[in-house]
Amino acid sequence: KQYRIAVIPGDGIGKEVMPEGLRVLETAAKKHGVSLHFDHFDFSSWDYYEKHGQMMPDDWKDQIGKHDAIYFGAVGWPAKIPDHVSLWGSLIKFRREFDQYVNLRPVRLMPGVPSPLANRKPGDIDFWVVRENTEGEYSSVGGRMFPDTDREFVTQQTVMTRIGVDRILKFAFELAQSRPKKHLTSATKSNGISITMPYWDERVEAMAKKYPSVKWDKYHIDILTANFVLHPDWFDVVVGSNLFGDILSDLGPACTGTIGIAPSGNINPDGNFPSVFEPVHGSAPDIAGQGIANPIGAIWSGAMMLEHLGEKKAGKSIVDAIERTLAERTLRTKDLGGNADTTACGKAVADMVD
Amino acid sequence: KQYRIAVIPGDGIGKEVMPEGLRVLETAAKKHGVSLHFDHFDFSSWDYYEKHGQMMPDDWKDQIGKHDAIYFGAVGWPAKIPDHVSLWGSLIKFRREFDQYVNLRPVRLMPGVPSPLANRKPGDIDFWVVRENTEGEYSSVGGRMFPDTDREFVTQQTVMTRIGVDRILKFAFELAQSRPKKHLTSATKSNGISITMPYWDERVEAMAKKYPSVKWDKYHIDILTANFVLHPDWFDVVVGSNLFGDILSDLGPACTGTIGIAPSGNINPDGNFPSVFEPVHGSAPDIAGQGIANPIGAIWSGAMMLEHLGEKKAGKSIVDAIERTLAERTLRTKDLGGNADTTACGKAVADMVD
Ligand SMILES: CC(C)[C@H](C(=O)O)[C@@H](O)C(=O)O
Ligand SMILES: CC(C)[C@H](C(=O)O)[C@@H](O)C(=O)O
Repeated sequence: KQYRIAVIPGDGIGKEVMPEGLRVLETAAKKHGVSLHFDHFDFSSWDYYEKHGQMMPDDWKDQIGKHDAIYFGAVGWPAKIPDHVSLWGSLIKFRREFDQYVNLRPVRLMPGVPSPLANRKPGDIDFWVVRENTEGEYSSVGGRMFPDTDREFVTQQTVMTRIGVDRILKFAFELAQSRPKKHLTSATKSNGISITMPYWDERVEAMAKKYPSVKWDKYHIDILTANFVLHPDWFDVVVGSNLFGDILSDLGPACTGTIGIAPSGNINPDGNFPSVFEPVHGSAPDIAGQGIANPIGAIWSGAMMLEHLGEKKAGKSIVDAIERTLAERTLRTKDLGGNADTTACGKAVADMVD
Repeated sequence: KQYRIAVIPGDGIGKEVMPEGLRVLETAAKKHGVSLHFDHFDFSSWDYYEKHGQMMPDDWKDQIGKHDAIYFGAVGWPAKIPDHVSLWGSLIKFRREFDQYVNLRPVRLMPGVPSPLANRKPGDIDFWVVRENTEGEYSSVGGRMFPDTDREFVTQQTVMTRIGVDRILKFAFELAQSRPKKHLTSATKSNGISITMPYWDERVEAMAKKYPSVKWDKYHIDILTANFVLHPDWFDVVVGSNLFGDILSDLGPACTGTIGIAPSGNINPDGNFPSVFEPVHGSAPDIAGQGIANPIGAIWSGAMMLEHLGEKKAGKSIVDAIERTLAERTLRTKDLGGNADTTACGKAVADMVD
């Protein structure tokens, strides 16, 4: 079978890291007899917006909706275009319209990466953050009244649906069940967010009954962020709402040294639409154009994409190559204290793939 | 002038740390010629609830509403009483009904406290988290529809009022202006929480115009939590909504080693109602009754209370005593790797006050 991949570099360093991601993907595909076909798209970027006045063509769903997966760089350039246009016109649109209800991000301390946490070594930190990716706090319901008066107020609803909450919990419990530790942690804040979060807790409790082999616990988000720093070894699978998952999946990678290497999948587990794989970092206007961005977030995202497609061996060969490259400590980018450029780092990883 | 302080130990380790807080307060008051009168209250606790079926007497506002300040231990015992009864029936009631719209918490790496962050030393981390304490994500507006069907959904509104947002921002900008670095950081998430958070940003921008000497910036909450770990030295005053402030004021203390020593003030800057001072830690049922809780969070909260009352010198004498006790590394509780009990630690701090 040939996999058709839609490639969307997007903005800023997205355009710099994607060629390295593709280089490594092609190397791994060749070594493992996987057939990948890449279609390149220039939309979902400031360049496209400048020409067309919108982030994506009207028929974007036809253009990329039938691909096996979407390989994405980064989008956004706040100085040129407001986030609500760029992000809500592309990334968040994908998540919603392609029903990518799982945002999946590994938190793993890699060999050779200095941890900002004292006394932590590779192996100590190795868990997944499973984030609800379509509803919750990222709603479009709300508004403003009495503008420019003392009575002015603004509201926005957090929305949790039974279907939306149960399906992300199911995914998280199944992931936990498949892992040696079989441990799930739920992020809540039911002591303060007094309506939606108790509902979340209630559904967690109900779902847990279906997975008796999974040990589970829950923490309020405030102390949970504290425990990411104090006890990152406690976690195996952490599940949270859209906002809580967003926070935890930036904080987790920070605890393991750099957001530059963290990958993510925006996954539609039902398979009726393609999933999007992208590095956790954004377009980084401050370093864009210098060729110094760390391509490992993009490369690792490519590995996640292969695993999602069922090509576990090819995917693992990339993760192993990343680990070896980092452990050697020679060809590393500036964010990791080295001075290799993006291309040199990408080539180093590609050379390690076997 | 004699200050009248309402003392509410509450639940669990609240009852163990408060006597030490009072011991140190009395010592400092005597040395600095400050006159404190303490009135003790047993409500806002599980014990009270067990006897009376409610957390507080009907006339609680008359009983403590005229005091100069409230000195609080901790409340909550989830195994015996649900959080929404215990917390919303006391702590959150105080915040709302006494209009304590500022929650103020220092994040400071103290001498002698091992930081979980690598290579950070005292002086590197020293900032304040200013949290909106009455509205935002902790609203009481929302509900559930279609229970127990596939259509079931739950909503909860985040509410930001012009008055509520502007007054917390004003407090934060004034605090920033009074500090040597004059630097304010706003926590936002306007790229995802698309209605309330852009409003927050808008008010920050408007308020900043009135404080031209304050340098300010903003970060989305996800990357902001990452920066607490990666660059805690970047911050001076950090202001956030009720939820974001809650998260940051647990994460910050965690980055400085232990939540056991962190203090907080629930402040009514207008002075029409008393403010509440309490340690950041909760009632900790798991270690309650053993006499091993760290009393420093409570003691430091007492110092914040004195400063709030205008007794800066007496307050500072307590903070200095805490620093010296921690630096000596002899009389420390279990959470800091020592084996002193609560009383021994409290006495050690009291002895250091001068
Ligand atoms: C106990 C809980 C409701 C409270 C809060 O979230 O405000 C606590 O975490 C705090 O920070 O004081
Ligand atoms: C860019 C932003 C809207 C997005 C989010 O909050 O979901 C990003 O932070 C992420 O985690 O993918």
